[in-house]
Amino acid sequence: MGRVTVRRPVRRLTAAGLRQRPDTLAAEEPLELRVGGRALAVTMRTPGNDVELAHGFLLSEGVLGERADVATARYCDGVDEQGRNTYNVLDLSLAPGVPAPETGVERNFYTTSSCGVCGKAALDAVKLRSRFSPATAPFAVKSDVLATLPDALRAKQKVFSSTGGLHAAALFTAEGTLAAVREDVGRHNAVDKVLGWALLEDRIPAGDLGLLVSGRASFELVQKAAMAGVGLLAAVSAPSSLAVELAEENGITLVGFLRGESMNLYTGDHRVLV
Amino acid sequence: MGRVTVRRPVRRLTAAGLRQRPDTLAAEEPLELRVGGRALAVTMRTPGNDVELAHGFLLSEGVLGERADVATARYCDGVDEQGRNTYNVLDLSLAPGVPAPETGVERNFYTTSSCGVCGKAALDAVKLRSRFSPATAPFAVKSDVLATLPDALRAKQKVFSSTGGLHAAALFTAEGTLAAVREDVGRHNAVDKVLGWALLEDRIPAGDLGLLVSGRASFELVQKAAMAGVGLLAAVSAPSSLAVELAEENGITLVGFLRGESMNLYTGDHRVLV
Repeated sequence: MGRVTVRRPVRRLTAAGLRQRPDTLAAEEPLELRVGGRALAVTMRTPGNDVELAHGFLLSEGVLGERADVATARYCDGVDEQGRNTYNVLDLSLAPGVPAPETGVERNFYTTSSCGVCGKAALDAVKLRSRFSPATAPFAVKSDVLATLPDALRAKQKVFSSTGGLHAAALFTAEGTLAAVREDVGRHNAVDKVLGWALLEDRIPAGDLGLLVSGRASFELVQKAAMAGVGLLAAVSAPSSLAVELAEENGITLVGFLRGESMNLYTGDHRVLV
Repeated sequence: MGRVTVRRPVRRLTAAGLRQRPDTLAAEEPLELRVGGRALAVTMRTPGNDVELAHGFLLSEGVLGERADVATARYCDGVDEQGRNTYNVLDLSLAPGVPAPETGVERNFYTTSSCGVCGKAALDAVKLRSRFSPATAPFAVKSDVLATLPDALRAKQKVFSSTGGLHAAALFTAEGTLAAVREDVGRHNAVDKVLGWALLEDRIPAGDLGLLVSGRASFELVQKAAMAGVGLLAAVSAPSSLAVELAEENGITLVGFLRGESMNLYTGDHRVLV
């Protein structure tokens, strides 16, 4: 589709003065995800690997557990006013017996009548229960292998190097091989894409792989790891407090500030072999 | 509330070996936002400035246009199972005559029956129309003033310096004064907080201020600027393609890669005085 990047003229100002030049931007477009013809969500994403993105999104939401849960995935064939298919609407049909997602209402816009459950209700509203057990994931990795990963990831970030504008996520083996690398303007999308790849490769639960992200580790990213049965999440930057709490609760190893030979081990040290 | 950061023990691995030490994490907790007692959304945010966050969020969503649109804002007084108020539920009541937001369904989970409007429908679903006119915002700033802003912002990022885990946003004057600086684990929250501050200070539409963000410029952040009547958005990192398109469409000046003396002018050059 060739829309991973977009060229645009830009005026660049430096100490040497102002000059016009072409610039390469990371593409951002809305993807409407439908399930069984019904609109479920719109996410702003970098086009490409949309089928993986949709699978990973629905895995993260607890709708899918394996590849066979999806019967078909196809782009909507409608066109815009210029007569082009924008490839921005993807429709998945679920296999017989797989319950369709509720339309998000209970998580994002649920209604409560009482004040008595305050903070807990808010957190429960965004927490999901994994069908897998990340705590028992057998994955373990040597610390010197972990140390090589950020450079290996950066080397594979083709779009980042031209735009500076993309997050990346990767799944990696205990030997330090990057099994899948995906980039996106949204870091949750990059993670959904690699997890969707794993689902399509029949590698979910991914208890034999680690998950690497180019930025920070938030609650949401730890939750995605848990939903995919991933036992180790490594982030180049800082984790949040709730990311650490959720990792601990799920028996997930959380590594932060993975830079050069140094790293912080927040939870589940046993999976990092020093 | 003292929950902007959280201390936790961490095992830090460096070339010198492994040692245990306390680490400071950026706090991340869910905030449930209610309007008139009805749950509207849950956002993962860094506690603090929640009233600003709620005002900015509702301004960004087109619900509020001025301070007087809100009658009261208060934390729910319920407690969790330990008997503590978590301060994670905030209830706003709107002034008489201000329409309550629809429960987000139309934007996030709208239903379409036809395939014929494909990509356009998905984009329309996330686009909002500003009640202000950012195109006519009088704001203009000298390029050498702009060049001083990232260092000034970093100097005010108190939590970032201890955690490395926070995004920041600021509103600034043509003279380069930072009128408000806010930090958050979510970059959209940091922007909502400064825009909420402006609303509470009766400075919306903020046509005489610029908006600065510590990271990248996405569609969503440009939309927030537009909804607040802000004429210039400057980002330390890269913009996405849709951010540039939306800025152009709204007559907003978009500056990217603002680093040292250099910067990229993507749209609306007239507001940057070289």
